[in-house]
Order: sequence, then C-alpha cells, then structure tokens
Amino acid sequence: MENELISTAQLEELIDAKKVKDIRQIFESVPTIDIAEACDDIEDVKKLVFIFKCVKSEYTAELFTELNPDVKEELIRILSDDQLADILEQQFTDDLVDDIEDMPANLVTRILRNVPKERRSTINRLLNYKENTAGSIMTTELLSLLDTLTADEAISKIRKIGKEKETIYTLFIIDNKRNLVGTLDLDDLIFAKGDEKLADLMNRDFVTVNVNTDQEEVANMVKRYDLNAIAVVNNENRLVGLCTIDDIVDVIEEEATEDVAALAHVTPLEDSYLDTPAWRMAMKCVPWIVVLLILGTFTTMVLDKLQGQQVFLMMPILIAFVPTLMDTGGNAGGQTIALMIRGLATKEFTPKDFFRVILKEALSALMVSSVILVFSFIWFTIEQYTGIVQNVGINGSIDGVAPTIWNGKCWDPEIAGEFAKSVIKVSATVSITLFAASFIAKIVAVLLPLGVAALKKDPAIVAQPLLTTIVDVLALISYLGIATLAFQVL
Amino acid sequence: MENELISTAQLEELIDAKKVKDIRQIFESVPTIDIAEACDDIEDVKKLVFIFKCVKSEYTAELFTELNPDVKEELIRILSDDQLADILEQQFTDDLVDDIEDMPANLVTRILRNVPKERRSTINRLLNYKENTAGSIMTTELLSLLDTLTADEAISKIRKIGKEKETIYTLFIIDNKRNLVGTLDLDDLIFAKGDEKLADLMNRDFVTVNVNTDQEEVANMVKRYDLNAIAVVNNENRLVGLCTIDDIVDVIEEEATEDVAALAHVTPLEDSYLDTPAWRMAMKCVPWIVVLLILGTFTTMVLDKLQGQQVFLMMPILIAFVPTLMDTGGNAGGQTIALMIRGLATKEFTPKDFFRVILKEALSALMVSSVILVFSFIWFTIEQYTGIVQNVGINGSIDGVAPTIWNGKCWDPEIAGEFAKSVIKVSATVSITLFAASFIAKIVAVLLPLGVAALKKDPAIVAQPLLTTIVDVLALISYLGIATLAFQVL
Repeated sequence: MENELISTAQLEELIDAKKVKDIRQIFESVPTIDIAEACDDIEDVKKLVFIFKCVKSEYTAELFTELNPDVKEELIRILSDDQLADILEQQFTDDLVDDIEDMPANLVTRILRNVPKERRSTINRLLNYKENTAGSIMTTELLSLLDTLTADEAISKIRKIGKEKETIYTLFIIDNKRNLVGTLDLDDLIFAKGDEKLADLMNRDFVTVNVNTDQEEVANMVKRYDLNAIAVVNNENRLVGLCTIDDIVDVIEEEATEDVAALAHVTPLEDSYLDTPAWRMAMKCVPWIVVLLILGTFTTMVLDKLQGQQVFLMMPILIAFVPTLMDTGGNAGGQTIALMIRGLATKEFTPKDFFRVILKEALSALMVSSVILVFSFIWFTIEQYTGIVQNVGINGSIDGVAPTIWNGKCWDPEIAGEFAKSVIKVSATVSITLFAASFIAKIVAVLLPLGVAALKKDPAIVAQPLLTTIVDVLALISYLGIATLAFQVL
Repeated sequence: MENELISTAQLEELIDAKKVKDIRQIFESVPTIDIAEACDDIEDVKKLVFIFKCVKSEYTAELFTELNPDVKEELIRILSDDQLADILEQQFTDDLVDDIEDMPANLVTRILRNVPKERRSTINRLLNYKENTAGSIMTTELLSLLDTLTADEAISKIRKIGKEKETIYTLFIIDNKRNLVGTLDLDDLIFAKGDEKLADLMNRDFVTVNVNTDQEEVANMVKRYDLNAIAVVNNENRLVGLCTIDDIVDVIEEEATEDVAALAHVTPLEDSYLDTPAWRMAMKCVPWIVVLLILGTFTTMVLDKLQGQQVFLMMPILIAFVPTLMDTGGNAGGQTIALMIRGLATKEFTPKDFFRVILKEALSALMVSSVILVFSFIWFTIEQYTGIVQNVGINGSIDGVAPTIWNGKCWDPEIAGEFAKSVIKVSATVSITLFAASFIAKIVAVLLPLGVAALKKDPAIVAQPLLTTIVDVLALISYLGIATLAFQVL
C-alpha cells in the first residue's frame, strides 16, 4: 500500500537465503523501479541472476528496463541465451534501442543474436534515425485498426493483440490502403455502441509528426493537443510508429535541463548526476570555461586601455565601479536571454513574431534601465557619502578633507560643496553608464537568440557565451565616453 | 489529415455570413486549440457568442477551456445564464478552478451561481488548497470501483458513468469501507477475463500523494513510477482526487521555466510570453537587478580598497585582469549551481546525498581549476607577449622598451629577461588566483544550494544571488594576497 521501500541489504539477504517466495512477494507489493534501485547497489551482479531465475519474466523484463546501464551490461554478459531471449521478448523495442545505443559492440551483437529476425530489422531501422528526432524516440508497437470495423470487433481485436502494444489508449485507424485516416481514444471506443463503425467514431482532426521532426517539436505538439500518443509518419506519409506521453515527459525534462545547462555554460550530463564520475563532470565544464576565458580577452584588452585614460587616472574611484557595471549589464542581459531561450524552446513565440517581441523587450528594457538609472544614482551617492567607496576628488584634490557622514570632518561649506559636486558627477557618470549598459544588454539579448534561432541554430548554446563579452565591451566603451564627457565638459 | 489551420479572418468571415454548417464543419476537422487561437484574436468578443449558439456544447465547452483568459472573462460577462451553465456543466472541475483563481470577484460569483450546489462546494474546497500543492492541481472527477466487482461488471459500470470522469485509464479500487486498496490500468481490465474479480486484477504496489504534497514532488512520483494518473489522499488517507499526466506535463514545464528564471535572476512570468505586457515584464526584472546592485556594493568596496594597495598601484596591468577573474569565478560557480539546482529539482539527489555530492564536486572542481590554471597561465603569457595587454613592469620600469612580438623592439637580453620575469609573475599571479577563485566558486556553489535545500527553502531563488557576491569578494581578496606575495617575495 504505502510506498514501502526495499533496501539493498534486505534484498541481498533474501537472495543469499534463496527465499524464492519472499522475493516473488516483493515483486507483487513494491514498485519495480524501487526494486531496481535496490538491485543497482548490489556489488556482485551474479546474485541478481537468481532473481531472473525465480521471478516471472513479465516482472523481470520490467526490472531489467529500469536497471542502471552498467548493471544491465554486466547482466547481459552473464545471463544465459534463454534467459536473455525471454527478457528481450518482453521489452518494448524503443527501450531496447535506447539501451543498445550506449552499449559496447559485443553486447549489441549478443542482444541482436537473441531476438527474432524480423525484430532485428526493426531495431536496425530505429538505430538509424538521427538522435533527438521523432524516429529515435518512437516505438513501432502500435495498434492500427481498419476503419470498417465495428466497436465490438475493435474491442475483441484489442483484447487479442493489444497486450504486446506500447499503448492501447490511442488507437490508429487506417483505411484499406493502409493510410492513416483517424485516431480513436480508447475511452471513446468503450463508451460507443457495439455496432458503431470506427469510421464514425474516430477523430479526423488528428495531427501527426514526421520521423525526422525534432523531439522538442514533438513534445510541443503532444502538449498543445493534449495527447496520450502521437502518430509518426515517414516521408511517404505512412504510419511507422508512435510517441507516447511518458517518452514526451522525458523529452520535456531533458530539453529543460539542456536549457538550464546552456544558460550556465555547461554541457548537459548524459547520465544521472550521481552516476556521472567527477572527471566526466569536469569535462562538461572545461571547454566552456576555456572559451569564455578566451572571449574575456576582449574585456581585458578594453579595460587595460581604459585605465590608462586620463579620466580614470584622475578619478580612480571610477574603476571601483567597473564590476558593478559589468555585473549589472550581465544580469540585465541574462534575464532577457533566459526569457527568450525558454520562450523559443517552449514555442511561446517563433522568430516570426520578431517585431512584436523586439518592441515589447525594448519597452521593458527602457523601463528597467530607467529604474536602474534612478535607483543607482541614489545608491551610489549614499555609498560615497557614507564612505563605503571613497571619493577623493580629481587627482585626490579633496583626499582626507572631504566630509562623509561618519568621519566627523568639519563641514566647511566650500569643501562640502566641492565634495557634493564630485559625488554627483561620479554617481551620474556611473548610473548613466548603467542605464546605457543594461538597455544595450537587453536589446542584444533579444537580437542574438532570435537571430541564431532564425539561422536554425540552438540559441541556448550559440547566443549565450557571446552575450557577456559583447555587453562587457560595449559597457566599458560607453563608460569611457560618458566619463570623459562628465569630467571635461560639465 | 494534415494540420489544416484556421485563421482569424476566415473564422470571422464565416461568423459574419452566419454559415452555421461551415462553422460546425470546422469543429469536426480542426483541433480545438487551433480554433481557440483563431478566436482569441477576434476583436469583438460578441461575435464569438454566435459560435456558442450554433455549435454543440461538448465542442464549445472544450473551446471555452482553451480560450485566452481575457476572452474567457469577456464571454462570461456577455453569455446568457443558460449558455454559461451549459458550458460550465461540461468543464472539468480542475480547469474551472484554475480559471476562477485568476478572475475578478463578480465573474466568480457569476460562475458559482451557474453551477449546481454540490459542485459549488467542491470548487470552494479546491480553491482552499495552497498553491502548487497536489490539492491545487488535482481533479475530483475520478472513477472508483469496489474490489468485489468482476471485470465485466466494472466495464459496464465504466460505460455508464465513466464519461464524466477526467480519466478512465487509471481506475481506483476501494474496499467496502471506501479505503483505497489498489489501482487498475484500463488496459489490464480490457485484457482480463470477464469473471475475474478486480481484487485479483489490481496493482497493490501503487503509490499515493497527500493533498498538501508539493506539485514538483507529485511530478517526480508520476515520472518515477511511469503513471497515467496518481491518487491524491487527504490526511485521513481517504481518496479525494487524482492528478493526471497532462497536468503533470504542465507542472514539469512550469518548474523548469522557474529554474531557468531563477538562474537568470528574473521572476517567472505567470502568463504566456506574448500575453505579458512590457511593464509587467519589467516588474519581473527590476527587483532582482536592484537586489544584485545592492549586493554588488561589497565588490565595489573591496575593489575600491584594492586599487589603493601598493601592489596594484605598482602593477596597474593586474587591474585589467579583474573582469576575467570575476567572470571566470562566476562562470565556474554558475555551472555547478545550475547542476545542483536541476539535480535537486528533478530529485536526482537530495540533501541526504550530501557527502557523495560534495566529494564528487570537490574532485571535479580540482580538475577544472587545474585546467584553468595551466591554460590561463599560457594564455595570459601570450596576451602579454603579443601586447594585447601591456606589461610595463613595476611602476612602468620597462614601459616602451619591453619587447613584444609585434613591436619590433630590439631584444636586448637584459630587458628581454626582465620583461619575461615580469610577464611570468603576472601570469602566475592571475592564473593562481583563477585556480583559487574557480575552486572556491565551485565549492560555494555546492554548499550554498544544499544548505538552502536542507533548510527547505528554494535553492534556485535563495542561493543564486548570493553566489556572485560571495565569489567576487573572495576572488578579489585572494587576488590581493597572491599578488602581494608574488611581487614582494618572489
């Protein structure tokens, strides 16, 4: 009843004591995925063979599917041909293909040797579809019914052949030329009168995807049309497979994790987190860090030139605001690019909505930047009056004499006035630059992913690394211009 | 049939010409969501009333569900009580509750007035569940069957009452005390012999969630156990509702978008992107930017102190590397925190796996930082020899005479030697600091979200903003220490 889990130790004990009955009982009362996780941690995989001997193959086939890839490979090595064939027979072809894709060649051979010839050719065909397409995630075990059948005939056919199919909740209706003409939800069939023809019951407003459609697009279709399963057709528009909602759930999560990873400059992990060794994790991080380090050279270059400029030598306090400038620009751009990348990924808009999106973002950027302008002006002024950062005037002209709130210096009106002027100039310079930097950052963050998406590249991967560098460099150059203006003209 | 879409203009034309038959035909051949999107863009909502008059209410109810919230509200205002009651009767209670939650009070009253009393109390109960819990996303229209029924009896009962239920693909089996004792997939019922008892057919290893369980946890359960629907029980363990996989798909996507948003420092949008006005988008961005700006004060403070230090005055080139330092630290930490936040969200690990995760990340951090150390040392040396950044020696001692690859200066062995020494010192200082900064960043990025998650707060929201500031400050302080050491001791 309640989620009563099974521990690895308990399971091992039962196996060691050869308690066949108890082991069978566990499969009745504990969800298979929980048993599989207990199995994964058993050190000696040979012990698992006992389970495969004493439990019914309909249970062990499911167990096998849920096991960790390493344990699975080890098992394929040590199971007998008969045991293996039994398990493979009960597996859905799409699960099997997923397994095979990551296995060493000798194990793949062993698997293919133990499945019937016809299935072997299906597996080989599925293996040939490009990764992340509908073809690569679809299953071929679907139920198609002739549109001339009655509801009762259909139900008895389902009872006869439905058990080996991936799903019977969505039925695919074909005409006598084997063209897909409709889909039928099982519940509509159940509620139908026995003598109604499928042709009258089926939905004619169904949607399909091509085998080469990207899995993200497939997920968006299933979600949009609220489907349990979607038909996959080949280039000749023949029904070749279906994708079910549980595969789609995995796709949605995978794509989301990919978006998060790309935004954080890391290649997504292929295995689960805990199964990924540290060195492989490092490998996912290093290339990005190095690329960003190289891109960062531009920023170093600009800053190196910048700090030699007259205005920054005169007012070293301006250099102290460089991190704030870069962080705020980066944050402002990062917000927008995240919205853009998720929006494009979940098809909230497409590059076709270009002008609407630009206009909306430009307006929003203007508002955000204006708030930043006002707030940062006030905040930077406070920072200087409290002495958090020290404004010592041009070339240190008021160093040590300027009145801040805490230093108890006499508020000589002339010095106080000069200090106030200096503070306002610095605050204005930095906050105006922040305004420009965040506005530019947000606009670049819209144009970059939209442009990349229009070129049919992945915006998450291509657009994101460029953003920081472009924004940093533009922000620093604006800073020089605005500072020069402020301290020479004003 | 291929996805033949309907445009707003086409639809409006049919309504204006009062082509009842054609409009009905559209509902047969075009998916409702596509019709709904065409309806959303019709300027005069009154025109839509014609559709609700002439099309069967089973279609219009679905259409109503899919409409944009604004259009929906407008319709509720102008439809007659009878029309409204018709539509509401066909709506699932969970959809209705979702709508009501965002509506002005007078429309809520209008809706509640047009549903039967019993349903009104269900709606009120559902409205009281806390947001983002199982209770708030569940539906109460579930099919429960007594365990003493036979398969045939069950099927005929389903045929009679199943049509009003949210799903019949997962059936909930209760005993005569109304306790939930099992679940049964519809396909198992279809494949069963007619006289088999449900008690013998049902799965006893089912899982349930409490009404107060967080929706993210519900999604993880449904995914983990590969379910079509999961039972929701109250604190007395009575069955009160169910969550179906299509609600779960929305939850998964919502949570993923929330993670992306949090990593990018923006509050997630509530409506779809294109429906969110620019000012509201700005409101989602501003608070975070301001908080980060305030947090950035620490960095400004530290850098302000730093640049007055002897070593940085002597070697201004070191200041040019500050952005690289901060960016690389931020990137290294960002990678790790993203993996942590996604891992925690998708339950790949929990705070209980603390030590395993720390160890793995520490190892990975060591490897990544070592690569950064070696690579950046080489890269910074190249930068200086090519003159991308100018190493002018201590206090400009070799300014203008130092030999770089492009400047054609004579390679006087003494000056070349001094230049080489200066270059190596700078490269070593910066790359050792980078090593420290990225290692520290990655460790902080593990400890922070794990700590926050252990305190049951959302790591995406709490941990992320703190990371940048902590890492920036630590990196700058390390920089001062290492630079002082390098240029005074070496």
